[in-house]
Amino acid sequence: MEEDVTSLAVDVGGVLRACRRVYRHLKPTPLIHYPLLSALLGCEAYVKHENCLPTGAFKIRGGLNLIAGLSEEEKRRGVATATRGNHGQSIALACRIHGVKCTVVVPEGNNPEKNEAMASFGAEVLVAGKDFDEARLKVEELRRERGVRYVHSGNEPPLIHGVGTYALEILQELPEVEVVLVPIGGGSGASGVLTVKQALAPRLRVIGVQAERAPAVYLSWKTGRVVETDSADTVADGLATRVPFELPLSIIRKHIDAVVTVGEEEILGAVFHYFRTTHHVAEPAAAAPLAAALNLRRELSGKKVVLVLSGGNIQVELFRDILRSNGSR
Amino acid sequence: MEEDVTSLAVDVGGVLRACRRVYRHLKPTPLIHYPLLSALLGCEAYVKHENCLPTGAFKIRGGLNLIAGLSEEEKRRGVATATRGNHGQSIALACRIHGVKCTVVVPEGNNPEKNEAMASFGAEVLVAGKDFDEARLKVEELRRERGVRYVHSGNEPPLIHGVGTYALEILQELPEVEVVLVPIGGGSGASGVLTVKQALAPRLRVIGVQAERAPAVYLSWKTGRVVETDSADTVADGLATRVPFELPLSIIRKHIDAVVTVGEEEILGAVFHYFRTTHHVAEPAAAAPLAAALNLRRELSGKKVVLVLSGGNIQVELFRDILRSNGSR
Repeated sequence: MEEDVTSLAVDVGGVLRACRRVYRHLKPTPLIHYPLLSALLGCEAYVKHENCLPTGAFKIRGGLNLIAGLSEEEKRRGVATATRGNHGQSIALACRIHGVKCTVVVPEGNNPEKNEAMASFGAEVLVAGKDFDEARLKVEELRRERGVRYVHSGNEPPLIHGVGTYALEILQELPEVEVVLVPIGGGSGASGVLTVKQALAPRLRVIGVQAERAPAVYLSWKTGRVVETDSADTVADGLATRVPFELPLSIIRKHIDAVVTVGEEEILGAVFHYFRTTHHVAEPAAAAPLAAALNLRRELSGKKVVLVLSGGNIQVELFRDILRSNGSR
Repeated sequence: MEEDVTSLAVDVGGVLRACRRVYRHLKPTPLIHYPLLSALLGCEAYVKHENCLPTGAFKIRGGLNLIAGLSEEEKRRGVATATRGNHGQSIALACRIHGVKCTVVVPEGNNPEKNEAMASFGAEVLVAGKDFDEARLKVEELRRERGVRYVHSGNEPPLIHGVGTYALEILQELPEVEVVLVPIGGGSGASGVLTVKQALAPRLRVIGVQAERAPAVYLSWKTGRVVETDSADTVADGLATRVPFELPLSIIRKHIDAVVTVGEEEILGAVFHYFRTTHHVAEPAAAAPLAAALNLRRELSGKKVVLVLSGGNIQVELFRDILRSNGSR
């Protein structure tokens, strides 16, 4: 049962093969140069707008690739996954598009806006367990009882290949890009970027960004061991991973140029800066690269830099609080 | 000097010829189906995301088409325009792309965020006059003194042809669309949609939306006369036109299915609904179609409806106030 997922094949061929499945249902996202953001950062700043996708986040690319590639038998039985947010919306919408029954298990007390969004895409949303790990036990139960396909949120090559399509888009539109800053939660997005970089742009510098309060991948990268943390208590729920996923971690360790961390206030400030300079809404995880870029101004100075705005699914209350507390900036 | 601008040729051929000039610099914008928005409206609701363009508004399409089409002599002398917002950003960015000197004249007290945005695209921003009409006098002066090309914000076929490209995108992606709701300020956006509709989708229903407090085009359409209003005092600055522009008005009167108006509170509520259901930021003018759709629920029931989210350039303070006052919804 315990297969070594790090031996699963992830390569740029998989990203290329994902394109047909992904672009049947969505368009390349905008890559926009913002003069005001560039002035703030002291570099030539471009934003990759993954918030402009049907679920408001990059993960739909992976969901579309994975669900389209299921066997007829798997499609007939349906899928289940455990999540607190964007991954669940991705799998839910991809399943709706492909006519596959989808069950999403969320832990008790999960954000009701996120639950509502997943249900709106046609998923059955079950509440089970106190936290993500307990929710996963429920998915295991569904697998045994109903024979559904369990979709892991990280250890799935089709997810990494699918999300890698945004990295291809960046290189097609801005081949001279020098630095890409990408948030790391589960690590599938960073893995997609790194897979494409290795094959097509080895000199591109890829910097991963984690939250100081959820630094499992950062610590694992830094120490060379697999580090789990006792908590992952960050406002950036998209980065709140306590236990690194094996497959993305193996790719990140091999190929990433650096991993940095940012603090809670820095993340919230970056959400505000994004709104002020671009009028786009970044969820906290998606604003983390901007927070990191502000810290890395010296290193990025004058360079062509892409910030991956990975999603916009912020809770209304939180965004209201951010605008309120940044009134005087 | 007083040419009859309503005789200027606007047709779908002009929209087609604009495509090459427009798509050299930007990608088609997303057209996204939102289940939560659809549930709110009782129809199959799609949003055309013109906020996902480099200036955050649809007008850049027209600016790119117009500036690319200038003679070498005009390009050498530069252009000038009077504006309070998105039109100025459009002309400024298009000029930067084409290496043309651009002067934007804004009235005293114009929103500093909008001025900053125009300047960030490389325009010289001059402040002159108490209102838009006085600012236009300054542009006249520049025309006499410097020989610059005056770019009108409405009576310019290349602007209408350029913005018409978003209507082509809608019909290519969703040919079965039944209703399009489009805001009307100067009327270039609506004119672009109507030009494409007449040629390619005559049965498509196009509904224009104005503010109750700035109803010049609505009244002109309704009465069959050209009606100017004494004020245009609406929170939706993109709709604040006191005097209808002749060319767009002539197209709108000939071809539009209906023009409706919405109140100030309805507009602000729609900005909130957009944020809640899509996590995108609509400036008030861009939210007006959603406000209208809420009023037209019965008529739209079950239909495939596209709401044109024409731009996202809202002032930070205003958006903060909207989130604050919609706390309990």
